[in-house]
Amino acid sequence: MHTTQSLRAFLSLDKTDISPKQVMVTVGGRYAVYLYIASALLPGDEAIILEPAWPAYKDCVKIVGGKPVIIPTDLEKDWEPSVDFLLECINESTKMIILNNPNNPTGKILDERDLKQMVDMAQENNLLILSDEVYSNFAFTPFKSILEFPESKQVYVSSFSKAFGMTGFRIGYAISDPETIERMTQLQNLCLTSVPEFVQHAAIAALDCIEEAGRHAKTVENRLRLVCNALKELPLSYYKPDGGFYIFPKIRDRKMNGEAFAEKLLTEKGVCVTPGTAFGEKYDSFIRICVCQPQSVLLEVVKRMGELLG
Amino acid sequence: MHTTQSLRAFLSLDKTDISPKQVMVTVGGRYAVYLYIASALLPGDEAIILEPAWPAYKDCVKIVGGKPVIIPTDLEKDWEPSVDFLLECINESTKMIILNNPNNPTGKILDERDLKQMVDMAQENNLLILSDEVYSNFAFTPFKSILEFPESKQVYVSSFSKAFGMTGFRIGYAISDPETIERMTQLQNLCLTSVPEFVQHAAIAALDCIEEAGRHAKTVENRLRLVCNALKELPLSYYKPDGGFYIFPKIRDRKMNGEAFAEKLLTEKGVCVTPGTAFGEKYDSFIRICVCQPQSVLLEVVKRMGELLG
Repeated sequence: MHTTQSLRAFLSLDKTDISPKQVMVTVGGRYAVYLYIASALLPGDEAIILEPAWPAYKDCVKIVGGKPVIIPTDLEKDWEPSVDFLLECINESTKMIILNNPNNPTGKILDERDLKQMVDMAQENNLLILSDEVYSNFAFTPFKSILEFPESKQVYVSSFSKAFGMTGFRIGYAISDPETIERMTQLQNLCLTSVPEFVQHAAIAALDCIEEAGRHAKTVENRLRLVCNALKELPLSYYKPDGGFYIFPKIRDRKMNGEAFAEKLLTEKGVCVTPGTAFGEKYDSFIRICVCQPQSVLLEVVKRMGELLG
Repeated sequence: MHTTQSLRAFLSLDKTDISPKQVMVTVGGRYAVYLYIASALLPGDEAIILEPAWPAYKDCVKIVGGKPVIIPTDLEKDWEPSVDFLLECINESTKMIILNNPNNPTGKILDERDLKQMVDMAQENNLLILSDEVYSNFAFTPFKSILEFPESKQVYVSSFSKAFGMTGFRIGYAISDPETIERMTQLQNLCLTSVPEFVQHAAIAALDCIEEAGRHAKTVENRLRLVCNALKELPLSYYKPDGGFYIFPKIRDRKMNGEAFAEKLLTEKGVCVTPGTAFGEKYDSFIRICVCQPQSVLLEVVKRMGELLG
């Protein structure tokens, strides 16, 4: 009960009530995503995924026999989803829409109007919403959580990995209605008993470190600003991230795609970025830069990128 | 590589070669069981389970759409499986046989002849063998691992929970052919990324504590002997365990089944045992006693059991 209160405080949920029966811990945020998808989709069911996206959503939908339906978003439209196009993709097999807000890799935060439109659309079409908000501690523009729309059928997924820098601990959590949490808990217990007990204690302790998590977010915000400014000198186009800790620039040079550039950067310059195709086939001109390094390293990274982009 | 050598030393596998590609760590032995079943069975496939058995086998087979086929064993026949009856249960849907050796809850160790018969039968009928040997560090009579029959299509499953008293760490492992391990690894990575890194380091350190694990096994053996001797005074029938750390006695009093006795023992005497029906419907006259307590506590447990059995 104390833990649920700490969690509410951390998530700044002053007005939203969460009971312990609505929360479960999982062996990482990824397993919360898997558990929800596995306990909600039947073979043949369709799940809408907005791309670019973390590949785990697509993989988890496929592994349970579901069909991922990809809705691309575009840099040129500030990564805003087209709700009209979304509506066109809904058929009687559509069961779920998967959101990642703030988005990995683009850093896009859905504005309140767009999110509300999606929630309404989901309700009208009886769709479940899976909202992965693992980067919500790194929201640098106004941010609404799916938890603020309790009228929708939803699961909120997050993790201690990003906000508290506890990636190696492998502990995440899900918030939903008690029946959904009960189903997900049964599935997790059946497969793997539990999250290691001492890891759970570490996570409880982390919830008392909200100030530290806030300072960590401020550091990331400063780094994003620094790298975005430095990138202005390079032949790249990008959306300045609203949140998260990635930048997802497009390489303007049409002779070199993201994979070739990432490969060259790694082998010739010792710098590792992720090619855009990891987040959707369409994004072959993109790379993802992660700002989880000190400022001096990040500036050196941009310098070396510049040497290759000429 | 060093770790694989430590593992071979721990498992006393002088003659069996194991390459790193044949081993994976999992978030507990239970997940190794799940991963193998999920990556090997298709919906409708049948898996043979010898009962009494840990309920996870049945649950994992069911959750992937498989059909558990139960082969009961009996106290009166020293828990020996009938290979003839087993053969009768095989049909074209039968894909796997699941062994737990030493057995939880009976403590039975399959003798070499019976195990060889099962391996031969599995080979002749093209069955996979899942051998859960999580209690093999507690083998007090001659014991053969499935790893000593490399001719069969098999997975060996174990855990650090029992041998090293690391239950709360949630780390297990599987040994199989490289292709099977690759499939299981892909499934685990897809669902949950990995075992926490520091937990893996703890397990590597544990492999250097073979002597301590041996002393721990000796303690358990002494406790089993003590409790078995003390139980002789009670109206119970039991098989003296060959291994493991449980005793699975049958209550001779036909007016009280295992569930009623376990309930009474808990509420009236503050002693917790597991009713036999947890390990198979047939075992409603049985209870499982776990000897993971000091000798003085165990003697007090037997005394209180005696007070109820009259």
